[in-house]
Amino acid sequence: MATHHFEPSIYYSALGTYEPVLRIESGDTVTTTTVDNAGRDSEDQAVTRGPNPQTGPFYIEDAAPGDTLAVHFDRVLPNRRIGRTATVVAPNVLDPYYVASILPKNGSAEWDIDVEKWTATLISPETSLGKFCLPLEPMVGCFGVAAQGGQAISTATSAEHGGNMDYRGFCQGATVYLPVFAEGGLFFLGDGHAVQGDGEIVGTGVEISFDVEFSVSLIKGKRIHWPRGENEDYIFTAGNARPLDQAVQHATTEMVRWLVELGLEGNEPHILLGQCVEYDVGNVFDPAYTMICKVKTNILQNVGLDVQSVL
Amino acid sequence: MATHHFEPSIYYSALGTYEPVLRIESGDTVTTTTVDNAGRDSEDQAVTRGPNPQTGPFYIEDAAPGDTLAVHFDRVLPNRRIGRTATVVAPNVLDPYYVASILPKNGSAEWDIDVEKWTATLISPETSLGKFCLPLEPMVGCFGVAAQGGQAISTATSAEHGGNMDYRGFCQGATVYLPVFAEGGLFFLGDGHAVQGDGEIVGTGVEISFDVEFSVSLIKGKRIHWPRGENEDYIFTAGNARPLDQAVQHATTEMVRWLVELGLEGNEPHILLGQCVEYDVGNVFDPAYTMICKVKTNILQNVGLDVQSVL
Amino acid sequence: MATHHFEPSIYYSALGTYEPVLRIESGDTVTTTTVDNAGRDSEDQAVTRGPNPQTGPFYIEDAAPGDTLAVHFDRVLPNRRIGRTATVVAPNVLDPYYVASILPKNGSAEWDIDVEKWTATLISPETSLGKFCLPLEPMVGCFGVAAQGGQAISTATSAEHGGNMDYRGFCQGATVYLPVFAEGGLFFLGDGHAVQGDGEIVGTGVEISFDVEFSVSLIKGKRIHWPRGENEDYIFTAGNARPLDQAVQHATTEMVRWLVELGLEGNEPHILLGQCVEYDVGNVFDPAYTMICKVKTNILQNVGLDVQSVL
Amino acid sequence: MATHHFEPSIYYSALGTYEPVLRIESGDTVTTTTVDNAGRDSEDQAVTRGPNPQTGPFYIEDAAPGDTLAVHFDRVLPNRRIGRTATVVAPNVLDPYYVASILPKNGSAEWDIDVEKWTATLISPETSLGKFCLPLEPMVGCFGVAAQGGQAISTATSAEHGGNMDYRGFCQGATVYLPVFAEGGLFFLGDGHAVQGDGEIVGTGVEISFDVEFSVSLIKGKRIHWPRGENEDYIFTAGNARPLDQAVQHATTEMVRWLVELGLEGNEPHILLGQCVEYDVGNVFDPAYTMICKVKTNILQNVGLDVQSVL
Repeated sequence: MATHHFEPSIYYSALGTYEPVLRIESGDTVTTTTVDNAGRDSEDQAVTRGPNPQTGPFYIEDAAPGDTLAVHFDRVLPNRRIGRTATVVAPNVLDPYYVASILPKNGSAEWDIDVEKWTATLISPETSLGKFCLPLEPMVGCFGVAAQGGQAISTATSAEHGGNMDYRGFCQGATVYLPVFAEGGLFFLGDGHAVQGDGEIVGTGVEISFDVEFSVSLIKGKRIHWPRGENEDYIFTAGNARPLDQAVQHATTEMVRWLVELGLEGNEPHILLGQCVEYDVGNVFDPAYTMICKVKTNILQNVGLDVQSVL
Repeated sequence: MATHHFEPSIYYSALGTYEPVLRIESGDTVTTTTVDNAGRDSEDQAVTRGPNPQTGPFYIEDAAPGDTLAVHFDRVLPNRRIGRTATVVAPNVLDPYYVASILPKNGSAEWDIDVEKWTATLISPETSLGKFCLPLEPMVGCFGVAAQGGQAISTATSAEHGGNMDYRGFCQGATVYLPVFAEGGLFFLGDGHAVQGDGEIVGTGVEISFDVEFSVSLIKGKRIHWPRGENEDYIFTAGNARPLDQAVQHATTEMVRWLVELGLEGNEPHILLGQCVEYDVGNVFDPAYTMICKVKTNILQNVGLDVQSVL
Repeated sequence: MATHHFEPSIYYSALGTYEPVLRIESGDTVTTTTVDNAGRDSEDQAVTRGPNPQTGPFYIEDAAPGDTLAVHFDRVLPNRRIGRTATVVAPNVLDPYYVASILPKNGSAEWDIDVEKWTATLISPETSLGKFCLPLEPMVGCFGVAAQGGQAISTATSAEHGGNMDYRGFCQGATVYLPVFAEGGLFFLGDGHAVQGDGEIVGTGVEISFDVEFSVSLIKGKRIHWPRGENEDYIFTAGNARPLDQAVQHATTEMVRWLVELGLEGNEPHILLGQCVEYDVGNVFDPAYTMICKVKTNILQNVGLDVQSVL
Repeated sequence: MATHHFEPSIYYSALGTYEPVLRIESGDTVTTTTVDNAGRDSEDQAVTRGPNPQTGPFYIEDAAPGDTLAVHFDRVLPNRRIGRTATVVAPNVLDPYYVASILPKNGSAEWDIDVEKWTATLISPETSLGKFCLPLEPMVGCFGVAAQGGQAISTATSAEHGGNMDYRGFCQGATVYLPVFAEGGLFFLGDGHAVQGDGEIVGTGVEISFDVEFSVSLIKGKRIHWPRGENEDYIFTAGNARPLDQAVQHATTEMVRWLVELGLEGNEPHILLGQCVEYDVGNVFDPAYTMICKVKTNILQNVGLDVQSVL
């Protein structure tokens, strides 16, 4: 149950079987930092190139294909004042005829991030939105393990191994579960957002560097198919694909599997999900879109299921 | 501002230019009933055939193509004890390989609806879920106006005119806005659900007959492209299409248009939506899927926009 | 086996249960005319409005839901010199980022249609394409029967009943099969194209009025799910939906059903299709896209299947 | 203009920046062999594992990101008698409700490949198809270069760099063009099919090992976005994505770009494509589907465009 502090000096823009930056054991905790989507650090200095450069990979001793890696986000916090966003909704998120007629030009907006007041405030450009201000909701845009089948998959997209899912629920306090595809698992993380709307529809959240702390736990011999997660109120699954319909299929199927693992049989997971499932939209900007399928933990407890986090 | 009580004796399974059952004026209120998705009434008697038979159409005096019809759901309440659901997630909502291997057979489940206790309780079949119980969330599964261009569109699907959107937010207290495509608008509603999970993924909510009361207001000369809505906390737009990606495009574009109507210009609606937009999933079972794009009303007010319902 | 000559004076832009313009019997032949997509006739006079106004409906005596209507296109021929096309690929057919950056404006081009020389020649605008000339391939863009479940579906789209499929194979000499959904079937046709690229990607073929002759045959008690067709070399099925993936599913499933009707069992239709199926793209411009699944008739004959047209 | 003979001893199931097996120069020719999709060689011995193990990578001297690599398939020929296919259409290619009800089980079929008679003949299992026999159409199912942005992409799918596109037009006599993303380009090929239906809808063609010969030519400083190709009659582009609609967008946009490179301007490529474009369906089984957009070479020549292959 060691705690490691790791200062990154190399970053990756794909999730593959690269040389580990640190070897840790199940139960260990790591404190480290992430740069923003464009490779800028806590001093707002460009120390590497985008897209979404990742801190890691962290090698988890004894992790092997067929296992599941649990990661708890203990701390996820902006570590500088300036955040940046794009300024136009992506053309793949709008009607093609609208795009062909009147889409404004893209640009860059700057936001002041105040972790004392817990606010993100638009500071440029000058618009009628004035000092547009939103509460902070720090989240990890991109994280995952080395991809399936020896692949190295760009941090601009996502798949079974995780990646650029941009789900607002991947925040401090959440536990995520990832299928291990390579020896050591090889966990990466980066692309912190101080705030983000659903879907990351302008192609960015409020992009910023982070101080992070996470703890890992290895579940030997447990095979999952897609990323999963837990927070205080929900268990959830992530499906990553295009079209979004297919992401719905992946996430829903993975949730049915999870309910079967918890003890339901036959039509039971179907009857349950039918009247209480909820969906959240992750990224709808990237090559693969992300859909989250979730169920309230107290509903599961009410029907006698034992939902218990490993972390 | 008359109040009409209407007892339906004929029902429609498409939204088209049928003979009106009642002519009302802008500002009027109607109390009536709806049968369930299969045509069963408050006595659980089959009085017509499915799918989703509609009460209506109600002709709104002076409504003409290019206007907008606002409808406020004053009251939306189950009026019998028994509700029914299907028991298997639809094959279009699960991974094709999962469907090919182990999908259980579909069936029918019965639920007891108690409006005193405000609960829906599974009463058959016998499963390990036992007396699975959920709080009521009554909602109108299908409503809309006569479809565009003289079409009559099945209540099994949805489009610009509304239809079978199955969004949990179409509930008591919500105001919906519909584009008028035919003289009189011709408003229909039906397919009440006592409870429903997001997406209506088993192809049904807890299907039940309703007592309803709604009030209408006609907005002359205002043209919208897709259904819109409002509740205490949000304004929202609905896009109906497959794939879900296209529903995202429709709903998002309609929200950009709305923000422009409220006074934003150029990149302003984009900058705003980028960091605070939310999406909800409506129906992902029907030929057309439904995506909801929504923004918190207080965020709009904070940047000085005047969001004021007509109803 | 009567031959009727019908002069249209009314046209429909949806395929529904409208008053028949003519009642005919199975075995009969009809000669008539169609106007172009915008309602212009053989004199290039606007006699009705678009989109894709249809000649018909023709009521086939004894046709009832659950039957199949066969229609043979005996003659499909432009009856004036001027044809028109749009001049830009539709934004839904191009990459969203390309659309956002450099899509040219749409316009109208004129073509001279010479049925003696069998050519379509671009005559305006002036471009570096000069007298761009293509051989005629006259085809029926939109045809079908009254839609399923009492619906009236716009001629701007397509579904199980046919509609605006824009497949180049719907030409003189082809036999088409349509599922009957209403009493009398109610056959409509229109939207002739002198030439058209696959997909109708600019949203038009070379739009023109037609002289047409067709013969019908009613197949009592035979239920099909999607439009089918035959020509000298192939049998084929049409699937209409978005995304195109779903159109592939519909067309392929309907072909499997057809092969089962012809006598194949178990894996046999799958083994056969796997190594010799072919696909053609119909419309990829409309709300519903069209995919054609086809198999060479001689391959079927070589494995002993009796493929015999009714017409 | 050297000719190299290369005997593979190592194979890759992803297209990434692996150690080259041979360094060649622009203008050189290579003769080599490929194993089948499951790693079986000309002796039908398993020498490596699937999916779709690739021969290569071949390093082309001087190739750098931003260049284009042209490869001519001089010879593509089965080098053993036995070929194998799956026996059921993939569940993602059929209607979900059909899959849920009556999809037969998958299996393996064997085919005798006779390059003298130029036939593929089904030899097992025993079915009513008997000695089902098709003419050979040998094609390269999977080929490409090291993927974009340092990725290694599985040979089970496809993207901008090529990959498992399964297009029947990738056959002897075709020239293909690939965007170079890594130093040396790093060309791979494998997954030969003796015959294949459009779409590879059972998930396999008639899978077999090949003798191949190919020649390469490097086009410095020419940047393309998606694979392109040429044969005697057509120029064509490939788009790889899901849904198929997006593959249509990629392929069509790349064709517009190509026509602009050939000298067309403004609406000219649009007017031309609108009335003569053709589409072929590549793989519709994999995570990414493939659509081919093509235009007849003689049409281009007729409007004065100089279409001239580099090979």
